[in-house]
Amino acid sequence: MRIRRPVMQRNDYFAGLVRGMLKQRNIFAFNLISSPGAGKTTLLEALAGEFGEELAVIEGDVKTRRDTVRIREAGCRAVQIETGGSCHLDAGAVKTALESLDTRGVRYLAVENVGNLICPSSYDLGEHIKVGMLSLPEGDDKVLKYPTLFSRIDLFLINKTDLGEHVDFDMDRAEKECRSLNPEVTTMRISARTGGGVKELACWIREREA
Amino acid sequence: MRIRRPVMQRNDYFAGLVRGMLKQRNIFAFNLISSPGAGKTTLLEALAGEFGEELAVIEGDVKTRRDTVRIREAGCRAVQIETGGSCHLDAGAVKTALESLDTRGVRYLAVENVGNLICPSSYDLGEHIKVGMLSLPEGDDKVLKYPTLFSRIDLFLINKTDLGEHVDFDMDRAEKECRSLNPEVTTMRISARTGGGVKELACWIREREA
Repeated sequence: MRIRRPVMQRNDYFAGLVRGMLKQRNIFAFNLISSPGAGKTTLLEALAGEFGEELAVIEGDVKTRRDTVRIREAGCRAVQIETGGSCHLDAGAVKTALESLDTRGVRYLAVENVGNLICPSSYDLGEHIKVGMLSLPEGDDKVLKYPTLFSRIDLFLINKTDLGEHVDFDMDRAEKECRSLNPEVTTMRISARTGGGVKELACWIREREA
Repeated sequence: MRIRRPVMQRNDYFAGLVRGMLKQRNIFAFNLISSPGAGKTTLLEALAGEFGEELAVIEGDVKTRRDTVRIREAGCRAVQIETGGSCHLDAGAVKTALESLDTRGVRYLAVENVGNLICPSSYDLGEHIKVGMLSLPEGDDKVLKYPTLFSRIDLFLINKTDLGEHVDFDMDRAEKECRSLNPEVTTMRISARTGGGVKELACWIREREA
């Protein structure tokens, strides 16, 4: 789908408002983008264990509130956006969600985008950084197939490293292809499910400035 | 993204032309939709082993010709559509691709859509049936999160059953949720990589009428 200019202008206006709200509250925000089922929510559950109530989450899904229930059970404040058919979050919805969140004590905001490697790439949500994640079962050929996302991210996560014995995935290849599009990208390898690499990721996030 | 009416009217016009071409050539076509990395191309490689040159493939990707190379190596005719940013195939592109395929001897056409559980659901490509596929590592909560697709498919495949020991996925739950949206859906469990269930799927496809 080609994106019409008025849609993007409206989005960018709201992204500016979100950026202002985050700055005022001294909150560092990241926009987490991956395929469905790559492990975004499981990663945020693991990060909830590191950050506790310093982390808040805006959950994006086409339908259901399942992920918000999981994040709250993991101990963080969370609010759900159900896009009702739309294939990505937009900044207007994020602004509304952020207004409804009690952010006292919150230092980090994760925005879990709709599971989709294409459409979310083009929408600025007012975040500080974009995080793109691939998981081992998806295959190591995906970076160049979805170049818009992987050329725009600040952090490239490879998840489900615990499945490395059971699937073919050349992590060096995927990281090399990501750097070919995006020389400045930071790369990390994690297993959200077992916790591998999660502490290092939390440290890296703590070093970012809101 | 809301879809504007002229876009859909144009798509449906071309879908009608594709349907006519398929009927004239007595070819049964299926539109294969899943997340990135759920195993669409691996499944088509496996089906190439069953159907040989009776199967032809139209490959859809945002970028790269990687999948077409794989399908040709597996012994089928294939043509690539690179959407160049668009998050789904449309019937106009499928018509152009079909015109460029030598379909002598071809009885089955697989259209591998762009890896995406949302946007491809809404575009009629002139196919006889829509096939939706989930893979075990994606998690068993995805059907109700992407209800448009799963309410419209004719066949629901659960792939990567070979990873069942290593990930949590309740196949009964996913199939039950799919039937709750879509009581007439046929369900099958496969492992494209090991070949489990592929012969049964090929038999099922052979029973369809062009």
